[in-house]
Amino acid sequence: MKINLLKKSLGIGAIFLASTVWAESEVANKPVHGEYKDWRLLSVSHRLEKKTLRAILGNDKAIEAARQGKTTPWPDGAILAKVVWKERQHPNWPQAIVPADFAAAEAMIKDSKKYASTGGWGFAHWQDNKLVMHDKETAAKCYACHVPMKDHDYVYTFNALQ
Amino acid sequence: MKINLLKKSLGIGAIFLASTVWAESEVANKPVHGEYKDWRLLSVSHRLEKKTLRAILGNDKAIEAARQGKTTPWPDGAILAKVVWKERQHPNWPQAIVPADFAAAEAMIKDSKKYASTGGWGFAHWQDNKLVMHDKETAAKCYACHVPMKDHDYVYTFNALQ
Repeated sequence: MKINLLKKSLGIGAIFLASTVWAESEVANKPVHGEYKDWRLLSVSHRLEKKTLRAILGNDKAIEAARQGKTTPWPDGAILAKVVWKERQHPNWPQAIVPADFAAAEAMIKDSKKYASTGGWGFAHWQDNKLVMHDKETAAKCYACHVPMKDHDYVYTFNALQ
Repeated sequence: MKINLLKKSLGIGAIFLASTVWAESEVANKPVHGEYKDWRLLSVSHRLEKKTLRAILGNDKAIEAARQGKTTPWPDGAILAKVVWKERQHPNWPQAIVPADFAAAEAMIKDSKKYASTGGWGFAHWQDNKLVMHDKETAAKCYACHVPMKDHDYVYTFNALQ
């Protein structure tokens, strides 16, 4: 009896704690980010059907190419990072859609020889701060979605800070 | 007669050229950006009622403070840049809202003594690559909108890349 009561209390306590944490304006999880956090901005986007916000960041090679207008094709060594957050309404401004929890960070890595079979791009993602190549099956899916942008070197992003 | 025909042809040619340019997926204007283009990302947002997308970038002082969790208050010398674009649907992915034309870049500059009357923040905007302080009237409007975030040192942005 006592153990059941204890379990119930802990359960209720956990729900209360979770709801207090949820009520906080700051997001709950504290992810470890990769090197992209120091990269510069190419663009942003809001994916309505995915309910996510994104920032597209580029490594130095990518930013250099973007500023010189040399992105069809992007040069080997350019890396584009897609940083994804779940969306939420800003607690103090409901018409502002802002990041909630961090969702994922993925990369497109340009190497026209190494990744010739997928348009010259390798597809990867960060596990915490470690960049890990996608397996062949996942990479094939990424590539398939990017094929419609073949004439833009497979990239959906238009440089917004040129 | 010949001159009129020439004028007409030039006019039609100009309209055709303009429509071809418009049809391009790349945005039409080529703005000159300020130093913020080399700053790092704090967050992104989509303002539904304004139909604009935003990136919030921070200078080194701001990024440092954000990563140390020392943003209530932000340190003197921190500058937050709000880069604004009009929104549009991605031509190849309608559910993706992406930047169209660049709209504006504004700044919040922290100096607790100099800007004591407006919460420690100076309000400015970039005219091309030049950072220009807002006049008193405009700054008062900016400040008034930010007052609801007084307990967050007047900043609406929650650091999304911590």
